[in-house]
Amino acid sequence: MQTIGGQKMLFSELTNSRLWKMSGRLKDAGPELFTLKDRHNHHYILSPTYEEVASDLLSLNPPISYKHFPLKVYQISSKFRDEMKPRYGLMRGREFLMKDMYSFDIDETSAKDTYNEICTSYDKIFDRIGIDYVKVLGDSGSIGGNLSHEYQFKAPIGEDCIITCNKCNFSANSEVCHEKKCPNCGEQENVLVQTGIEVGHTFLLGDKYSKPLKAFYLGKNAKPQVLQMGSYGLGLSRILAACVELLSTETDIAWPDVLAPYNVAVIPPKAGSKEEQVTKDVPENLYKLLEDSIPQLKDNVLLDDRLSLTIGRRYLDAKRTGYRYIVVINEKSSGEKPTFEMNDTKETDRLYLSQEELIEYVKQNTKF
Amino acid sequence: MQTIGGQKMLFSELTNSRLWKMSGRLKDAGPELFTLKDRHNHHYILSPTYEEVASDLLSLNPPISYKHFPLKVYQISSKFRDEMKPRYGLMRGREFLMKDMYSFDIDETSAKDTYNEICTSYDKIFDRIGIDYVKVLGDSGSIGGNLSHEYQFKAPIGEDCIITCNKCNFSANSEVCHEKKCPNCGEQENVLVQTGIEVGHTFLLGDKYSKPLKAFYLGKNAKPQVLQMGSYGLGLSRILAACVELLSTETDIAWPDVLAPYNVAVIPPKAGSKEEQVTKDVPENLYKLLEDSIPQLKDNVLLDDRLSLTIGRRYLDAKRTGYRYIVVINEKSSGEKPTFEMNDTKETDRLYLSQEELIEYVKQNTKF
Repeated sequence: MQTIGGQKMLFSELTNSRLWKMSGRLKDAGPELFTLKDRHNHHYILSPTYEEVASDLLSLNPPISYKHFPLKVYQISSKFRDEMKPRYGLMRGREFLMKDMYSFDIDETSAKDTYNEICTSYDKIFDRIGIDYVKVLGDSGSIGGNLSHEYQFKAPIGEDCIITCNKCNFSANSEVCHEKKCPNCGEQENVLVQTGIEVGHTFLLGDKYSKPLKAFYLGKNAKPQVLQMGSYGLGLSRILAACVELLSTETDIAWPDVLAPYNVAVIPPKAGSKEEQVTKDVPENLYKLLEDSIPQLKDNVLLDDRLSLTIGRRYLDAKRTGYRYIVVINEKSSGEKPTFEMNDTKETDRLYLSQEELIEYVKQNTKF
Repeated sequence: MQTIGGQKMLFSELTNSRLWKMSGRLKDAGPELFTLKDRHNHHYILSPTYEEVASDLLSLNPPISYKHFPLKVYQISSKFRDEMKPRYGLMRGREFLMKDMYSFDIDETSAKDTYNEICTSYDKIFDRIGIDYVKVLGDSGSIGGNLSHEYQFKAPIGEDCIITCNKCNFSANSEVCHEKKCPNCGEQENVLVQTGIEVGHTFLLGDKYSKPLKAFYLGKNAKPQVLQMGSYGLGLSRILAACVELLSTETDIAWPDVLAPYNVAVIPPKAGSKEEQVTKDVPENLYKLLEDSIPQLKDNVLLDDRLSLTIGRRYLDAKRTGYRYIVVINEKSSGEKPTFEMNDTKETDRLYLSQEELIEYVKQNTKF
């Protein structure tokens, strides 16, 4: 978000209902909107999304000059939706973490450019996460606008239907999962229908919110003109839950490398063991070496110093929690040619590597 | 928080009213509590604090073994209070950022030890911020418990009264600001009454919440026993607002060094100027050198590359925003003996320093 010029901020989670009245969304929102009143009987909503609030921020007098656009603001915060059927823990909760961005441009052409730029950055984020996903034409739903795209993790437990036509390459969120007919070209044979988990959604909104909320810029002619807007959401807590759902087994969690709490766990021998006596500073030194040798491992290596526990117990804990590489220190890890037991939880074989080989292995196999 | 063994987590902001009924706090809370109902007519509060929720987390069956205590959990999140008189922007808002920690111990002695340990870490935090503060015996208010302390920034606009007795060294939050009599020893002469902004509050709670919420541990005798609890709050958004209030002038913001968005701003010459031609890579090199020479300056130096703006304009912006050191690159900043114009906004004199002197100056004068 920073790389593409996003400016981080934090909106309040309570939104005055007045703003949602201005956009017309208050009456359409229905029971999914949490509402409350303060001690003065003023009405508020617990915000599920911030198109109105972001527009309101730009409804300044005098408006900002055309020179300062595009403007992209984003936040990471809790959002609220009174779901009829909350389920699967963080997958569909009534309170969830979302990264949302709002873009403002002076005309439709530049708004489209900004939209594409931000979508490209979303593509990169999902490519790095590495879960099999599909980007489809979105169902604009209650947010509306001219164009929208959804990022969907392919998943059997997904609640959304994705229709993909192999004839015309059209791909979209489909209201009805049983219908096997391309909405674009009418093809009925080469059509794939699969379920997905919606993890991101982008909207090119035009002036749907900026006009009623009076989000204007000051044009070259020194007159206020309506801004063109985009809105972009990433479901952070849902992405985490979906990763656990899709990558884990009954007993062990697995994470995409970029999302793991730590990539490497180093497990020293148990206190009082003979291995402990011969290895001394080896665990700490390896820990430091890993952090120093690979920039992405900075603050990303765990030294499990619960030395009162057996190696086996700590190994199981590491596997369960989802640290990809579990390095066990044993009596062969000291001396002239020290080797380390490397367990890559993505592979079945256990490896015995020198320090140099260990670092090279992590470098080569991790998708940072 | 990590250094003292705190475990970071995130509680949901909506709390089921049932938990606050169990502690008895729901009926005492009054209009300061935001309340709402969901679509099923279940009652929730927008949490101002989490003693009940943290206790509920520990009400496991079977309870956790005594071996795993003390336990310290903390979060950084928005809290809500329907203030009668919200004012001074972030200073007293109805939605605010708070860092809150909850500690659990197996007996009163270790609970007191944990309380003291966490208070010491709070002392260190406020020492580093460097705003003149006083730690006083707290008004336990609606949270209650056995003992509490408040951290108060000394401030004319503060809404709290602090009474300090120079005879017996007693210091406390006083309900009534006009009364000049030590509540501890009765002294009436050597007593100081001043106003403060409450920025932190710690509570040793005993079993006030753990007992009704059934937060138990499994004792050595294998029987469930009530945990002893502590609660510790830091008003993050209020600390920022108070710093601005206390350190800034009409025109310029100033920050404590540890809280500044950036400590150093480097301002290169305007594009197309003759200074630009002779200095070329100098700004970028200085920027990198500063980041590399002083560990605390990593991601903490701003290179203001808005080269279409004059140096003067960017200098004013830097001063307004509160970057302490503003380094201006001019024609003397290149060649054999380059010098840099160093403006320490805490001093009046402008300095002309070599690269080495510049780095040494920042090292010596910054309170990282």
